[in-house]
Amino acid sequence: MSPPTIMPEWLHARAAATPERLALVAGATRLSFAALDAMVDVAGQRLRTLGVEHGDRVGLLLGNSVEFAVLAHAVPRAGGVLVPLNTRLAPPELAWQLGDCGARLLIHDAATQAAACAAAQAQPGARPVAAEVIVVRAEPGGSQAAAPPIDLSALHTIVYTSGTTGRPKGAMLTFGNHWWSAVGSALNLGHRLDDRWLAVLPLFHVGGLAILLRGVIGGVPVVLHRAFDPAAVNGAIEREGVTHVSVVSAMLRRMLDERGARPYPSTLRCLLLGGGPAPRPLLEAAARLGAPVVQTYGLTETASQLATLSPDDALRKLGSAGKPLLHSELRILTELGEAAPGEAGEIVVRGPTVTAGYLNQPQETAAQIRDGWLHTGDLGYLDAEGYLYVLDRRDDLIISGGENVYPAEVEAVLLAHPDVEEAGVVGVPDPRWGQVPVAVVRPRPGSSLDEAAAIAFCAGRLARYKVPVRVRFADALPRTASGKLRRAELRAALGLG
Amino acid sequence: MSPPTIMPEWLHARAAATPERLALVAGATRLSFAALDAMVDVAGQRLRTLGVEHGDRVGLLLGNSVEFAVLAHAVPRAGGVLVPLNTRLAPPELAWQLGDCGARLLIHDAATQAAACAAAQAQPGARPVAAEVIVVRAEPGGSQAAAPPIDLSALHTIVYTSGTTGRPKGAMLTFGNHWWSAVGSALNLGHRLDDRWLAVLPLFHVGGLAILLRGVIGGVPVVLHRAFDPAAVNGAIEREGVTHVSVVSAMLRRMLDERGARPYPSTLRCLLLGGGPAPRPLLEAAARLGAPVVQTYGLTETASQLATLSPDDALRKLGSAGKPLLHSELRILTELGEAAPGEAGEIVVRGPTVTAGYLNQPQETAAQIRDGWLHTGDLGYLDAEGYLYVLDRRDDLIISGGENVYPAEVEAVLLAHPDVEEAGVVGVPDPRWGQVPVAVVRPRPGSSLDEAAAIAFCAGRLARYKVPVRVRFADALPRTASGKLRRAELRAALGLG
Repeated sequence: MSPPTIMPEWLHARAAATPERLALVAGATRLSFAALDAMVDVAGQRLRTLGVEHGDRVGLLLGNSVEFAVLAHAVPRAGGVLVPLNTRLAPPELAWQLGDCGARLLIHDAATQAAACAAAQAQPGARPVAAEVIVVRAEPGGSQAAAPPIDLSALHTIVYTSGTTGRPKGAMLTFGNHWWSAVGSALNLGHRLDDRWLAVLPLFHVGGLAILLRGVIGGVPVVLHRAFDPAAVNGAIEREGVTHVSVVSAMLRRMLDERGARPYPSTLRCLLLGGGPAPRPLLEAAARLGAPVVQTYGLTETASQLATLSPDDALRKLGSAGKPLLHSELRILTELGEAAPGEAGEIVVRGPTVTAGYLNQPQETAAQIRDGWLHTGDLGYLDAEGYLYVLDRRDDLIISGGENVYPAEVEAVLLAHPDVEEAGVVGVPDPRWGQVPVAVVRPRPGSSLDEAAAIAFCAGRLARYKVPVRVRFADALPRTASGKLRRAELRAALGLG
Repeated sequence: MSPPTIMPEWLHARAAATPERLALVAGATRLSFAALDAMVDVAGQRLRTLGVEHGDRVGLLLGNSVEFAVLAHAVPRAGGVLVPLNTRLAPPELAWQLGDCGARLLIHDAATQAAACAAAQAQPGARPVAAEVIVVRAEPGGSQAAAPPIDLSALHTIVYTSGTTGRPKGAMLTFGNHWWSAVGSALNLGHRLDDRWLAVLPLFHVGGLAILLRGVIGGVPVVLHRAFDPAAVNGAIEREGVTHVSVVSAMLRRMLDERGARPYPSTLRCLLLGGGPAPRPLLEAAARLGAPVVQTYGLTETASQLATLSPDDALRKLGSAGKPLLHSELRILTELGEAAPGEAGEIVVRGPTVTAGYLNQPQETAAQIRDGWLHTGDLGYLDAEGYLYVLDRRDDLIISGGENVYPAEVEAVLLAHPDVEEAGVVGVPDPRWGQVPVAVVRPRPGSSLDEAAAIAFCAGRLARYKVPVRVRFADALPRTASGKLRRAELRAALGLG
């Protein structure tokens, strides 16, 4: 009576079940599940021709596109492991991730070709290949290759997430992690056959990728936007029957600004708001326009949503991220044990969406996942009714426009400059991005390093959203006796209290 | 990276997630998930007080009732294994099932007390206990006992299904079998938070039990009817917001008769029609009234639905049971291997809802489940688009008003009569029940056995729906050289071609 772990491959089963239903809308492209399945079939074969073998890691350096959607299914079908890469990363960051996972192929398009080639020079194991070589139109039914069944315990994706230690960690997500995430979402939010989910979050983030997989598992279309344009998102809601949109606060704010005073139509059933705590005035403004905002708390390490406010409670519990999905558990721990209602502590979660661990980092894995419980490092509390309120992402984490920035990673780059002796990075409020990183540096005595040079140094080594917008200089940084940076004091020194 | 098998107990998690939502409506009783959870909590404690220990089998001899619904959750919560028993069984049939599973308790109500006590005399291990002793009203939040997490691979239910060998077989269903069934149904039919499913099928059958579990997993109410009354079902659709009803053909026919020419309201989203092939004129009559009939093919051994027509195809593929649920596979096998489209053969299925096997029957289990594939014995074919058409349930199976009657079981009873030397049972068409059993008997030479005596003999030993409506007498029964009954010839001899 061992549990079942084998099932038909999702897209293939979906194309067999409902071949004619719409699967993907991207600009002028409209693909049925049968058409998507046929393209994935051909792409999978091409990947194998290119040498992809069982378990090989395949990097995807692509923006939101039909190519990404096809390859997200084709890489696993070919037996490979999907490694979606943030297109905003600098070549040294890319090279590090490709080296860490031992990527065999690095798939790019015209927009990311230069970055891919630069990264591949630093990590020659990962051969750059253009997506157009792999993804072509194919006739439904034209290919006859069957997709092998999948094993829910097998590795599907490695998604890099910023690390507190200065190096990203590759969270290993299984087919099962993704499946349970999709099922948990459907059971909580409901699942209608006329749902239509807009993917405008980057697909290389787990929140975007989850939309693609949910669409296939649930058999509903995904509308794909290449980049975030508030007018285009509002237009898709108004005119294209979009019922669900996943957003972060910065996007929601711009959508509301663009919309003015016009209420949203009732066909919009869910604005799933993730990416960190949302400011209450924003939630109230959304409520005034009838925007059905549903807050969620999710992590790369939980294959997206872990807790989501039920639509029943959207207004009554404004500001809460709700309760854990049915199959998952959530606790708040203080140093003394389980927190009382209203008492803040670390958010600790368990369930079938929790990552199998971090690639090549057994110590980090053991430290963060104990007895199945993932210690998120995020701060929150449960109210008397058990609703989660997220107070702050991991102590020092900066969230800028929905992207996570770990100070340690930026500090590590600054410290690599020969004229920097000490560096500290904190997030400061920003009206557009929520937060932006700011650095304080203690320069080598006698050096001539100035702000512009320090920023330029970072710009060549870090994704743009991680580059400090300001660099201040100081004679000393506030530290604890054990040498740990006191970020609160640093913030205070910057006049940020 | 082993697959997840542990999750919070469904009802407890559901009550935590959406305590105030309506869970159950039965006559004047309306229970929220919190109220149901509290009652289950108390009932679980009482079961433990009554001696139920981990793995103990608990027989439930109850009609559709709040008590059944509470105990269906309380028995697993107390660590026991649920054994729902058909209330129409005769005491010797009950005693056999109780003995086979080694039941420790046999829970009854006033209506089933006599049968329970009679059965318990024959099988003294199973102590009869009145449901009223165990199930009481409880205040939500009044009890504080937590429900332990569940293991999807653990045994949840033993459901007896008629056997071809003359003895019922206890299909062992795990928590996982039920969970995957509910999830597969939601992904196929959709899952709206305003769904409301009417349970009028007996809860002791897997098709009824599945409604209860789906309701809790999906967080939507179940409306429970004690017995089938076509006017009451139509009234619940018309006035009580029922969106889904599971029915068998005999029920649907009476519902349509009662309704006359009035179309069904659009709030009725699904009449899930199971229990065997449906006559085409019935489906056409339903379509004329706008009844959204969705045919399904399910088995006790697959925790209900295995294949279900997608609502998209309800009219285009009238008469088909659709395609397998997303997580399952279905093939048609002939003696020569995989059948061609349109070619009839045995329906063979695989997936996470397939039973772990038959209790105490390793040989039968090995014969029917090979390499994960359940050989159903049912006949059907796939059309060119892969849609399943069920031609006939297992060769000799008689389906009477949705109940399965195995000829071998009835024959075994007749053969136990001292004046019967040979017996054969076949189904004959019946306008109300679809089919009814008819027997042909070769009496002992010189015996004075007549039809009335033979029927009376069966009536004391078999559930009423299994008792032959007619008994004919013959000098010989048609048999193959190896002695196997030729049922087709027997049917012909009865003038049924």
